[in-house]
Amino acid sequence: MQAKLGVAVVGVGMLGRRHAENLRRHVPEAQLLAVCDSSRSRSLEVAADLEVEQATDRLEEILDRKDIQAVVIATPSKFHAEQIEALARAGKHIFCEKPLALSLAQADLALAAVGAAGVQLQIGFMRRYDPGYAAAFRRIEAGEIGEPVIFKSVGRDRQPPPVSFFEGGVNGTLFSDAAIHDFDLARWMMSDEVGAVHAYAGVLACPELARFDDVDAALVNLRFARGGIGNIETFRKSSYGYDIRTEILGTRGAVQVGYLQQTPFQVLTSTGIAHDVVEHWLVRFADAYLAELRDFVRSIRSDAPVRVNGKDGRQALAVALAAEQSYRQAGPVALD
Amino acid sequence: MQAKLGVAVVGVGMLGRRHAENLRRHVPEAQLLAVCDSSRSRSLEVAADLEVEQATDRLEEILDRKDIQAVVIATPSKFHAEQIEALARAGKHIFCEKPLALSLAQADLALAAVGAAGVQLQIGFMRRYDPGYAAAFRRIEAGEIGEPVIFKSVGRDRQPPPVSFFEGGVNGTLFSDAAIHDFDLARWMMSDEVGAVHAYAGVLACPELARFDDVDAALVNLRFARGGIGNIETFRKSSYGYDIRTEILGTRGAVQVGYLQQTPFQVLTSTGIAHDVVEHWLVRFADAYLAELRDFVRSIRSDAPVRVNGKDGRQALAVALAAEQSYRQAGPVALD
Amino acid sequence: MQAKLGVAVVGVGMLGRRHAENLRRHVPEAQLLAVCDSSRSRSLEVAADLEVEQATDRLEEILDRKDIQAVVIATPSKFHAEQIEALARAGKHIFCEKPLALSLAQADLALAAVGAAGVQLQIGFMRRYDPGYAAAFRRIEAGEIGEPVIFKSVGRDRQPPPVSFFEGGVNGTLFSDAAIHDFDLARWMMSDEVGAVHAYAGVLACPELARFDDVDAALVNLRFARGGIGNIETFRKSSYGYDIRTEILGTRGAVQVGYLQQTPFQVLTSTGIAHDVVEHWLVRFADAYLAELRDFVRSIRSDAPVRVNGKDGRQALAVALAAEQSYRQAGPVALD
Amino acid sequence: MQAKLGVAVVGVGMLGRRHAENLRRHVPEAQLLAVCDSSRSRSLEVAADLEVEQATDRLEEILDRKDIQAVVIATPSKFHAEQIEALARAGKHIFCEKPLALSLAQADLALAAVGAAGVQLQIGFMRRYDPGYAAAFRRIEAGEIGEPVIFKSVGRDRQPPPVSFFEGGVNGTLFSDAAIHDFDLARWMMSDEVGAVHAYAGVLACPELARFDDVDAALVNLRFARGGIGNIETFRKSSYGYDIRTEILGTRGAVQVGYLQQTPFQVLTSTGIAHDVVEHWLVRFADAYLAELRDFVRSIRSDAPVRVNGKDGRQALAVALAAEQSYRQAGPVALD
Repeated sequence: MQAKLGVAVVGVGMLGRRHAENLRRHVPEAQLLAVCDSSRSRSLEVAADLEVEQATDRLEEILDRKDIQAVVIATPSKFHAEQIEALARAGKHIFCEKPLALSLAQADLALAAVGAAGVQLQIGFMRRYDPGYAAAFRRIEAGEIGEPVIFKSVGRDRQPPPVSFFEGGVNGTLFSDAAIHDFDLARWMMSDEVGAVHAYAGVLACPELARFDDVDAALVNLRFARGGIGNIETFRKSSYGYDIRTEILGTRGAVQVGYLQQTPFQVLTSTGIAHDVVEHWLVRFADAYLAELRDFVRSIRSDAPVRVNGKDGRQALAVALAAEQSYRQAGPVALD
Repeated sequence: MQAKLGVAVVGVGMLGRRHAENLRRHVPEAQLLAVCDSSRSRSLEVAADLEVEQATDRLEEILDRKDIQAVVIATPSKFHAEQIEALARAGKHIFCEKPLALSLAQADLALAAVGAAGVQLQIGFMRRYDPGYAAAFRRIEAGEIGEPVIFKSVGRDRQPPPVSFFEGGVNGTLFSDAAIHDFDLARWMMSDEVGAVHAYAGVLACPELARFDDVDAALVNLRFARGGIGNIETFRKSSYGYDIRTEILGTRGAVQVGYLQQTPFQVLTSTGIAHDVVEHWLVRFADAYLAELRDFVRSIRSDAPVRVNGKDGRQALAVALAAEQSYRQAGPVALD
Repeated sequence: MQAKLGVAVVGVGMLGRRHAENLRRHVPEAQLLAVCDSSRSRSLEVAADLEVEQATDRLEEILDRKDIQAVVIATPSKFHAEQIEALARAGKHIFCEKPLALSLAQADLALAAVGAAGVQLQIGFMRRYDPGYAAAFRRIEAGEIGEPVIFKSVGRDRQPPPVSFFEGGVNGTLFSDAAIHDFDLARWMMSDEVGAVHAYAGVLACPELARFDDVDAALVNLRFARGGIGNIETFRKSSYGYDIRTEILGTRGAVQVGYLQQTPFQVLTSTGIAHDVVEHWLVRFADAYLAELRDFVRSIRSDAPVRVNGKDGRQALAVALAAEQSYRQAGPVALD
Repeated sequence: MQAKLGVAVVGVGMLGRRHAENLRRHVPEAQLLAVCDSSRSRSLEVAADLEVEQATDRLEEILDRKDIQAVVIATPSKFHAEQIEALARAGKHIFCEKPLALSLAQADLALAAVGAAGVQLQIGFMRRYDPGYAAAFRRIEAGEIGEPVIFKSVGRDRQPPPVSFFEGGVNGTLFSDAAIHDFDLARWMMSDEVGAVHAYAGVLACPELARFDDVDAALVNLRFARGGIGNIETFRKSSYGYDIRTEILGTRGAVQVGYLQQTPFQVLTSTGIAHDVVEHWLVRFADAYLAELRDFVRSIRSDAPVRVNGKDGRQALAVALAAEQSYRQAGPVALD
């Protein structure tokens, strides 16, 4: 049997830590050799909790280890592109959280480095690995709804991330940080490219975001290259829970993905029937986060192309940036 | 075209009044000629509201009118059997609310009178006319679930009727007044007869019913003649709403009938998702109450046999009485 | 007691006939005195079925009857404005189906005539009378979701109307015929005016509509005057059923209106769980169509202002026309 | 920090293997030192897959290891009691799958051995650890539904276990193998003891079970000591999926636990809306199986009493045996 794939995780905040746990405990074909974080104490803590041998705050230490063949990037978005470049040059295969970059120029530099190094790059669009989305895509591919013509998606967080998340714009904006999941779904599920977008957006529920020149709500109209149309809603503060729903309408039917209730339990009293709602994306997509890493490790070990590649990362980013531009210019924006 | 069917309604409390309204406004093939109620003022009020020519508190006046060919009985249950006898002897076709009678002896006398007079008798098991129950029955008949083997039904009122409803036992008990709907469903949907029953019951939520020697909750286990089994729950006070649900399990699948939400609307806040529940049987079965009357009028006018006949009334009553006996004797009871 | 309100219905196609039935059978304060339709045979048939004394194909006969105080218009949209003018000049109160007109110029002439005559005009936005929408609005007004900031609505017909419906453009376009319901909801439920719109649209599922210069699918982004945003989807052919759903998100929660299942019944087999879907708008909004007429009759008889007036009709039309313009010009359109 | 708890798993069929996986990967406070199975090859395979040092087919090897402080029993039911006795005598804490035993005599011997040895015994009623059941119990305890008075539960397997499962009666009957989960829920959620039962049962859908003197369907009526009533349905072959639902009705409201849909995805076409159903109990209760082991390990390490103890195992067994007796004797059976 082939040896395990040596892996490191760079950036072990909430999501990076989850990736590290998944690699350590649930992906037996991988061996988690190191964790790296700009906060040395955080990397030490995660390494201790997960019994990982190396903890560091210096990416160079990761680059230098020959036994690390693949690296998971879960740092703030601003650093993705340059870290991809460095890791690619060091010959590492890369799994990078969305977005690929914060500008198309950065994205193209990163992709060039990946191409030159002959390594693979997978982008963390985990929804493609969710059982619901996967089932929907299979049914569309099987022709059950005819030709898909309308794409609708809703992404609502219960609460925005803490204010620190928005400091310095290191995580992009609502468009490149949150709506980008739906832009990827749009391309993937419609098997088409987005040709033009129009966005209305604003600071509607979280006034504390205004000073970051970001928005908390956006509605993005889409026109696809082959004529289909779509709309994406992204909202930072639904108050009632985490709500991710997608519909694709075809010429002969539709598919719907999503659910609201987290606990299989409801109370029925004289004031009505009440149940809870999914709280958080780490709960809703727990299985998907694991499945994407397993698939990545399997692809790298078997020398097969990854399923969600650098171009997918670039195209979703292009839509996100066009949507933001549309909002700022108050007019539709065409993509190449 | 044939003349309209001349009809009278006897007993215009909540349900009889609804029957009268339906006949007056929604059954064009019928002409509502008279309403009769032991309360003269109530019959006058209903006649005025619905623009009916005759209001009376004397059944004889109904019996004497030759232009009244059919009569709807919606009086307290205690009077059903004797009124059926009188009306049958007068040559009237009869639509009688459930139960047919409060004892099998009464029931048999009433059926004998109906038979002797050559009139028709339909029993008001309106659920058979509900779109959901009707659809379920069609699917079972079509063999979609294989052979039906388990029958489950739940019947919950939000609140019990007012205490006056229980005075003198004129409306029977929980078994003959409420559970009897499910006993009829059991026979009809399983296309089988109930062979034995076992009941646990008690006064669990409405202590005011104890003095009437009635119960507010019952669970009745059923064994069908061909080997199937079933259970019926009847509860006078669910607090959260009117909840009627039935499942039939077959050797290859199942059907479910029922719903909870009345208004197509829900509120989503940080405390969860909440919606309302159906309030009342006149809301849940509004269409069924109309459909059964239309079917009755159509059957009589076309001289076709009614769909829910006197035997159906008798058999459901037999199960109800056996269930009550089981509860009182603390042991299972076999039916003939 | 005051005499009944004398009413006529002009245009007795599918919907006008329903209005006539409702007036004849379910609105006791009204007396349906005449029906009028450009097809004389159709007016005769409806009059016979409903036992209405007068059937005509000449509007003048309606105008001339002094005992007709109010008229319901359910003709093709193209004729609404001129018929309103004529009826207003004859002193009739008017209930007019949507849209008020097919151009703002026509709309303004009609409203001027109404104003000059001192009669009342109600527009048939029946969704405001649906129990679900009404409940949602009350909860929003009560502040349960905080300030409403995002409006989302979906309107899907199972199949487009027959091709004859589109001939000559007498019924407007997807925007003024169908989406206009959602534009009215947007104004009403957000208690705000639409300030700008952007639309993508196309012929995506019904190629037979292309020759009418109409579309079968549209996504309209909305910006409200006070800063809120919204999106409306309108689709002529969902294939699976009639699907009307609306969500309003506020700063503290959300409300949802809508449902899919028509019959309270589902089949469970080894291939999954399946249920049906609402078939048609006359089924989904049966109660609302009745409630709006009752309210209209009540308002006229009590000399109270109608709840959905001419200005509501004009503003929804303005949004519809702007959305169509946006689609045709490929850019956002601001409203006054 | 205290050392990890040394654990072995005895019986590594489908469920025992899951317990071993959970201990190995998801319960960091435990160290899985050995697996034991009457099939030596199976124990070797599981040990290899999970990287467990010792694999054996001799329980004595487990008994002899001093570093094994706790043992999980997941063998066929027939062996539970004697294995508990042996393990208790060897001073091991025990987590035993349901049922505790196949007779009350065996159960009492096992409990006596546990008591004499001063070890702890937890029974695998994992539903108590399901988020839905746990939430329901908390709400009942908090008084939200008033006093609980009616207990209803449904347990349906999609398909019966393979015929080999029934050979020799080593796994008990429908009552002691399957319905016992609901008998435990009944005691726990009602905070009461079952005082009497009545059962109808039969071979209704799986004729291959007849030769084992077992049944595939049962409806068990319950009477609780304090007067409440209940009914439990158990069915081996629902065909459409795994369906576990429980309702508790109180004097002021109700709670419901359970769900049908597994994948958050549905297809909508002209034939209706369809979704899937949970397939299997290892899917439905995956989290609960893990949570119960974590709780067991935590209790043992902290020397706290386990949450589901030997008496719970005995009482549920007593109800199961009484239900079976009721079915065989065709009459109600009282419990002590």
